Amino acid sequence: MSAPVARAIRIGLLGCGVVGQGILRTIATRQEALTRRLGVPIEVRKIVARDPDKERGEFVPPGLLSFDPDSVLLDDDIDVVVEVMGGLEPAGSLVLAAIERGKSVVTANKFLLAERGHELFERAEARGVDLAFEAAVCGGVPVIRVLREALVSDNVLGLRGIVNGTSNYILSRMKEEKLDFAVALRAAQDAGYAEADPTLDVDGGDATHKLTILATLAFGAKILPAQIHKEGIENVAAIDMQMAARFGYVIKLLAIARVLPGGALDLRVHPALVPESTVLASINGALNAVYIEGESLGPCLLSGYGAGAMPTAMSVVSDIVDVGRNLLTGSRGRVPHRALRSESLSVREVRDAGDHTGPYYLRFSVLDRPGVLARIAGVLGAFDVSIEQMVQEGRAASTSDPVHVVMLTHACKEANVRGALREIHMLSGIAQPARAIRIEEG
Amino acid sequence: MSAPVARAIRIGLLGCGVVGQGILRTIATRQEALTRRLGVPIEVRKIVARDPDKERGEFVPPGLLSFDPDSVLLDDDIDVVVEVMGGLEPAGSLVLAAIERGKSVVTANKFLLAERGHELFERAEARGVDLAFEAAVCGGVPVIRVLREALVSDNVLGLRGIVNGTSNYILSRMKEEKLDFAVALRAAQDAGYAEADPTLDVDGGDATHKLTILATLAFGAKILPAQIHKEGIENVAAIDMQMAARFGYVIKLLAIARVLPGGALDLRVHPALVPESTVLASINGALNAVYIEGESLGPCLLSGYGAGAMPTAMSVVSDIVDVGRNLLTGSRGRVPHRALRSESLSVREVRDAGDHTGPYYLRFSVLDRPGVLARIAGVLGAFDVSIEQMVQEGRAASTSDPVHVVMLTHACKEANVRGALREIHMLSGIAQPARAIRIEEG
Repeated sequence: MSAPVARAIRIGLLGCGVVGQGILRTIATRQEALTRRLGVPIEVRKIVARDPDKERGEFVPPGLLSFDPDSVLLDDDIDVVVEVMGGLEPAGSLVLAAIERGKSVVTANKFLLAERGHELFERAEARGVDLAFEAAVCGGVPVIRVLREALVSDNVLGLRGIVNGTSNYILSRMKEEKLDFAVALRAAQDAGYAEADPTLDVDGGDATHKLTILATLAFGAKILPAQIHKEGIENVAAIDMQMAARFGYVIKLLAIARVLPGGALDLRVHPALVPESTVLASINGALNAVYIEGESLGPCLLSGYGAGAMPTAMSVVSDIVDVGRNLLTGSRGRVPHRALRSESLSVREVRDAGDHTGPYYLRFSVLDRPGVLARIAGVLGAFDVSIEQMVQEGRAASTSDPVHVVMLTHACKEANVRGALREIHMLSGIAQPARAIRIEEG
Repeated sequence: MSAPVARAIRIGLLGCGVVGQGILRTIATRQEALTRRLGVPIEVRKIVARDPDKERGEFVPPGLLSFDPDSVLLDDDIDVVVEVMGGLEPAGSLVLAAIERGKSVVTANKFLLAERGHELFERAEARGVDLAFEAAVCGGVPVIRVLREALVSDNVLGLRGIVNGTSNYILSRMKEEKLDFAVALRAAQDAGYAEADPTLDVDGGDATHKLTILATLAFGAKILPAQIHKEGIENVAAIDMQMAARFGYVIKLLAIARVLPGGALDLRVHPALVPESTVLASINGALNAVYIEGESLGPCLLSGYGAGAMPTAMSVVSDIVDVGRNLLTGSRGRVPHRALRSESLSVREVRDAGDHTGPYYLRFSVLDRPGVLARIAGVLGAFDVSIEQMVQEGRAASTSDPVHVVMLTHACKEANVRGALREIHMLSGIAQPARAIRIEEG
């Protein structure tokens, strides 16, 4: 190793919420071990918070606290800016300003990286600084490092996983306690697993941000969130969870990215029925799990806590050490941030969601009258959707009460399923819009 | 990134068996992708094989083949020596000679690193070269990189895993097909999963080598294989697998390393009963899996194929890229090989196996005569071993035929179990030595 050029790696922290405080706690309590590993100490020079009135924990020295981001950006003694504010702004402008001033950046901000990552990575390359982001996906589970470095010599064929802990917690509660979505969401909020505004967690937005980052690394391609087909879990009902169990499945919010035979990419975030016997089905609560399939490696599973202050803080501090090593050895940009440098990233065709082919779970709310089922089956047949199994939930008390009819289909084309459901919706005897959920055999 | 100082990373390969050929195949078929990631190509300069008469695959250019290791060691144009011969010698002398000549080394040799690793790492540090070894543990599963880099900021409390694919394959066959050990071993040999001499796989030696390396990284301590309590799977019988299932357990060969409350280490490799409902119980065949428990991270699971030509070759080539990046950016030794540099590694106390406390599975072969069970129970009681459950397998045809009696104990001290079994062995009515297998609730 070259002789250290600095006596410390000096950081400025933007954001002092639970993750920020976890970072300060990690640095303070593990200072000696960190110094033995890195060679020099990590020194916190400045902490920028938003709200002067908020209570802060024991690891926030009041003398370092500031409410002006310029106190970090304009301090030439700060080597590394650590951004854990979250959200697009002001985080985006501050990260960009730090890069432009020649500082390396460590961030946990998946929203920012998914929406503006390519621009920020290009600027970081141009300025010769590092932009590290292990904590942005799956918290403490080191999926970024594994995809970018451990698999550098493999051809990644695909990945699939559970990458949003909040929606997984909600689905787990729905399954275990037969709760409806709204009740399970409230439970997640009460337990501190869901934000006051849970939109990005439950509508698949957060998982889409993470998949954008993972797919970029996996395929060496410039992926954008708008290219990912996205569905959330808001429409999964307690009855769906129960019916899925009856057929031996569990419903999970999956993020899927894979290379199709012709070379186009298949990119999707949606609830899916997965067989009860698979490992993904057993990933419960706030856990995350990602299967990566390498041409040489075969399937490889990574699983652990994908969120929470301490796992996320741990990843951020490991990134500070990594970036610090590059500063100490003069090797910034040693590993291209997105596995490949900008000029080598490809633009890949992404398959239209309607062209997806696979089996489906279909649930109809129908009035229990003669002929309704036959008409549904007729429309499905006309659209080339063939039924593998069917079950009706009991009998209705009267012919004006709806009953649930669930069908599992053979593999069929998504556009055909949608076409059939539109037509079925106009039939008489249909009480509510039908639900369609993809089945992923794993 | 600094401007590349070389036009290629030039390697010499020691060993041309299945892994060696997998490495050549990976480099040949993925040359363009590797160059885009590394910045320069990987160039194979020389391949040293042992047997001139052996058939080699299409990726071994005859012009590069040599049978003299000096053709690699003395070639000043070779930057990186890749050792995939296996075994202690001549591999050890060759790796040491390469280091002394200032070459970086990539190896998959866990036996060598467990037995002589500390010496080799110290020489590599002194010479300022890299010694990379991701492929030495769990093949393609990047557990080395995760422990050393992703968890650099965490305090690793322990790890446990299935790290020997051969013994796991044998135990899986024993369970699924109710085979005896000897039959399942032969099946593993026929399927190519076990060597002609399977000693190191089935006696726990290979798992002990891997645990030596993992524990060194996890705890920043100088661990030696002799400090690890080792038992193999040779004495696990078909009846044990069946009786374990009856109580809801599966028998697996586990490698366990953890920090005990007083700070001493608990290091063991042995068959263990693990609950059927746990993830480790579902890791079957040639798969490997390692749980790492970090103070901040919590439990994190890594799983995948731990052996085989292509997963292992993939890890070796990723290490070549990593070592190559250090050469290109002048940052050799950027990450200490054992997480800490030699002078910072600690020497840790290791608890004596006899002091282990936990529940046990005990199987006795007894003659079905009045009073035998009472005498066994009496001895166990005298040694403070209390029985939680007991089952006798049917009745014997006569009082001279042995029957199996299985007991699960409450947590008790290992030395007491051993003392009791020695005394029980001298009782009349005992047909065979008793078997004791630890229970690991997970």
